[in-house]
Amino acid sequence: MAVPKIDRKDQVLRAAERLFSQRGFHAASVRDIAHALQIKGGSLYAHIESKDDLLWEIVSVAADRFFAAISPIVKADLVPVERLKRAILAHVGVITGNLEAAAVYSNEWRNLSDRRRTQFAARRDEYEGIFRGLLGDCIREGTFAAVDEKFATLLILSSMNWIYQWYRADGPMTPEEIARKLTEMIFNGLRR
Amino acid sequence: MAVPKIDRKDQVLRAAERLFSQRGFHAASVRDIAHALQIKGGSLYAHIESKDDLLWEIVSVAADRFFAAISPIVKADLVPVERLKRAILAHVGVITGNLEAAAVYSNEWRNLSDRRRTQFAARRDEYEGIFRGLLGDCIREGTFAAVDEKFATLLILSSMNWIYQWYRADGPMTPEEIARKLTEMIFNGLRR
Repeated sequence: MAVPKIDRKDQVLRAAERLFSQRGFHAASVRDIAHALQIKGGSLYAHIESKDDLLWEIVSVAADRFFAAISPIVKADLVPVERLKRAILAHVGVITGNLEAAAVYSNEWRNLSDRRRTQFAARRDEYEGIFRGLLGDCIREGTFAAVDEKFATLLILSSMNWIYQWYRADGPMTPEEIARKLTEMIFNGLRR
Repeated sequence: MAVPKIDRKDQVLRAAERLFSQRGFHAASVRDIAHALQIKGGSLYAHIESKDDLLWEIVSVAADRFFAAISPIVKADLVPVERLKRAILAHVGVITGNLEAAAVYSNEWRNLSDRRRTQFAARRDEYEGIFRGLLGDCIREGTFAAVDEKFATLLILSSMNWIYQWYRADGPMTPEEIARKLTEMIFNGLRR
């Protein structure tokens, strides 16, 4: 029985995520991806146009996941600090849900073609803007001090985006615990 | 007049840092490095044994710089929180002093040969341990709350290690300002 085309496409994306995250985009060839799937290089072109398209698809799907995870939270009828807390949990969930995609999203987007890199950067800025808005609401509402919004947003996103480097599904912390500790430390600080 | 050998070696390391950080270790060839220096590939082997050696030298020199920057601080006769503050400033200084080396140090060490990767990981753990010690002192002395030491250490290192992604020497913030803001936010938290 033939493998349904949609499943195969998904397998191709997963193999590419794994290889791009392990070896880097330039070093992983279409032949490597085909080899990982035990198919011929030529057969792969039934599913993809080019390696660039694969990278674009991976980072676009990852971006979609991040947006989809936080979009309902932004509109939720909650106090600002609770919205930010839930957005952090959602973002951590996307990263821990697919570490390889998170690694490609964080590191390999530089290898996109110029036009796509510009598109990607715009989406990333838009996403950063949503977090900045959530944080700004906490400041305006009086829960947070009048900190540098842009810098604080970078601090929050940076501390989350590093998680793919050390998180393991079989490790001692769940994504919920990670998000909770991170939120507590950044919101309350380390001082007694 | 011949270029002194020591300068040439330094040029080779810098060219390799730039290419490894831009394209990734696997995708940057010895030929690319030679081309960047406008010399023949063969001439490069007067300065290096292999591409692996180059990577090893770059991450080792970077590790040396991090250790050299914080070592005097660890022994300084200061209150614990001041030692941690100065270690953060020193670490930010090393990153902003050579963004390309910081990028290679953060991302490309995975491409080291097994033996060297193990050695590298041990040094990185040792470095993390120094920060953890500084942070632990702040807890034991009573300045910091009894937070999860390991997690808090990762938070501090993560937020610093992301700096190479957005810092620009001609940007609006100096390394000192970055370190000061980061310290204030993490120590005091965002809450009013």
